Amino acid sequence: MPKPQQASERVAVVGASMTQFGQREGWIMDLLAEAGIECLEDAGVDASDVEHLYVSNMASGEFEGMTGVPNALVHDLDAMPAYTQRVDQTSSSGGAGIYAAWQSIASGASDMTLLVGGEKMSHRSTPKTTDIIASVTHPVEYKTGVTLPSFAGLTARHYLERFDAPRESLGKVAVKNHKNGVDNPHAQFQKEVDLETILESPIVADPLRLYDFCPITDGSAALMFCPESVAKEYTDEYVIIAGVDGATDTHVVHEREDPTVMGGVVESGKGAYEMSGYGPDDIDVAELHDMFTILEFLQMEGLGFAEQGEAWKLIEEGYTERDTGELPVNTSGGLKSKGHPLGASGIAQGVEIYEQLIGEAGPRQVDADIGLACNVGGFGNCVITTIMEAAQ
Amino acid sequence: MPKPQQASERVAVVGASMTQFGQREGWIMDLLAEAGIECLEDAGVDASDVEHLYVSNMASGEFEGMTGVPNALVHDLDAMPAYTQRVDQTSSSGGAGIYAAWQSIASGASDMTLLVGGEKMSHRSTPKTTDIIASVTHPVEYKTGVTLPSFAGLTARHYLERFDAPRESLGKVAVKNHKNGVDNPHAQFQKEVDLETILESPIVADPLRLYDFCPITDGSAALMFCPESVAKEYTDEYVIIAGVDGATDTHVVHEREDPTVMGGVVESGKGAYEMSGYGPDDIDVAELHDMFTILEFLQMEGLGFAEQGEAWKLIEEGYTERDTGELPVNTSGGLKSKGHPLGASGIAQGVEIYEQLIGEAGPRQVDADIGLACNVGGFGNCVITTIMEAAQ
Repeated sequence: MPKPQQASERVAVVGASMTQFGQREGWIMDLLAEAGIECLEDAGVDASDVEHLYVSNMASGEFEGMTGVPNALVHDLDAMPAYTQRVDQTSSSGGAGIYAAWQSIASGASDMTLLVGGEKMSHRSTPKTTDIIASVTHPVEYKTGVTLPSFAGLTARHYLERFDAPRESLGKVAVKNHKNGVDNPHAQFQKEVDLETILESPIVADPLRLYDFCPITDGSAALMFCPESVAKEYTDEYVIIAGVDGATDTHVVHEREDPTVMGGVVESGKGAYEMSGYGPDDIDVAELHDMFTILEFLQMEGLGFAEQGEAWKLIEEGYTERDTGELPVNTSGGLKSKGHPLGASGIAQGVEIYEQLIGEAGPRQVDADIGLACNVGGFGNCVITTIMEAAQ
Repeated sequence: MPKPQQASERVAVVGASMTQFGQREGWIMDLLAEAGIECLEDAGVDASDVEHLYVSNMASGEFEGMTGVPNALVHDLDAMPAYTQRVDQTSSSGGAGIYAAWQSIASGASDMTLLVGGEKMSHRSTPKTTDIIASVTHPVEYKTGVTLPSFAGLTARHYLERFDAPRESLGKVAVKNHKNGVDNPHAQFQKEVDLETILESPIVADPLRLYDFCPITDGSAALMFCPESVAKEYTDEYVIIAGVDGATDTHVVHEREDPTVMGGVVESGKGAYEMSGYGPDDIDVAELHDMFTILEFLQMEGLGFAEQGEAWKLIEEGYTERDTGELPVNTSGGLKSKGHPLGASGIAQGVEIYEQLIGEAGPRQVDADIGLACNVGGFGNCVITTIMEAAQ
């Protein structure tokens, strides 16, 4: 759906932060507070000036037996009486938080909205964590024992066979994103991985192997939103949310007509492009949701960066390389090397685009005025696409 | 915080529904779908015209091991590619959903937003359910074994002693709300309870007894939101969201200066009054969050319907009676007799006010043009107040 912006002025991002991603001590509340405090400092905003505080988190109750986390965070940041709520859209909770924060500003409900997202997962066993995540699937599929990695394996096999793509092309997504992650001090894995290691790693869901998957991660990230007129009071270096939209696809994955097309990616991308007035060719840098390597291809295609069945050629050509490619993808390291703390990931994508657009991405810096982030919930069950541009 | 409405036009409610509340068969998804379908029919809106679909739910993962419920609901209602997310604000998730839906329309992000909320709780044991709800408390209080009923007992004792209020006045809240619930075909308890029964029921948290508490409930409720110009295309009988605001108080309850003042009630009420231009004297009917009888008094006072320490006199005077009082409170039966399925309750409050304002409350009908709903999260940790008015 096109989303014409009715609000009288544009929504700006004036601060960003993320914690170290990886295996972390502490509760979810500690991680959220860490990112929240750092974002307040980065934006130069007093906690008492925050009017809304949204928390992106999928499953603090399931992982830690703790609910009401947004209320606790407002208290811990001394931001009372700021209004707060939890935004849950499974693994796209962060992107959903961006959309919610945008709405809070664009509607006039808030003039300063702090968005903090995070997840604490690594203290649970891998089977337990996988089961909590698998609980997003439809009961008719969940009861068969299917998990998100199973969907990924089935889709990857179909893609490789149908489009005559080499298995190596998927591995090259992991090579690229790990290489980018080396320069991200917050990434869970700051080390390169070569193609041979990837192709010889243990099979998880054939044809996908261990290195085709993102890790289990603890971490938090934050962004600060306000109307553009307010942003100008704080800084000259801010970013505008030029377009944002979210869309669903069938919740029962096997009902989709074409398993290589993620309808939520296509529809949310369309909405974000339409709202912003930009198209795929205008995007200078993108963060895509590479929870599994195959997903980077499906988003490249769904967002119009490649024709259907041809994204694999672009990775082979180096089109998405950070320093030499036409469209650098996942300069942050992506979920693959940065890690994937569910509620934080979509926000961390936004943090990377924000830093790229204001020129603070350090050794990861590319030349970019317009960036895109695509955050995928479940196996494309709901997707949020955000387009940001540097302030003029 | 005052929330001036920047949007070019007002936000309308054009449809409402609620399921039978009580012990229900089926999953949360079944309950949500039931209310969602009925709300689409009530509003005369096609599922394909829904642009955003928000789901208010606190704990489907904890109660049922099921997440991603909003995505499943969009699928089951055949509303793809409508954007969806879960709104969690503990026991005020429904009120938070109203605020989120308002923001989605006022920001221009959506021209038709379906809000559905619900909870499925009764299949779990009372200790387990109480523990899931108690997980909203701050860890420093949770670890002492405190639960929401404990807070209620402590506060009630303090209130009765400090303001020299008779124990009977609390019982009369239950008598009134049960009496109102008799005429609500969706209420969990459709039967009167006399004062003697209440005062002799088992002690739960001294001085509060069994009948001072709302029950554990399954159920769902829904509301349909759109811009006023769109509402006119569907119906002449719609309601306007005149004011809405949310606010937090300390998450650690024992840090509050005055345990009889709920800061979240006061602040959210102030914001909603300011946005609407109305004050306490303008309100014709109110739904207050009577999870515990004492809460009705605290909200009466926090919202300016009574002076501090004097709400108990109003119940003694019959001021809040449905058919004879100046300000009918909880005409629906309140959480006390209608039941309290966490994610549904705030929306069900909105359903009651909507029906009162368009004159469809049947035997519960009062004379009202302006109504207020106050939805309390945790023990006042976050509160959302909404003021609705009948369309002119």
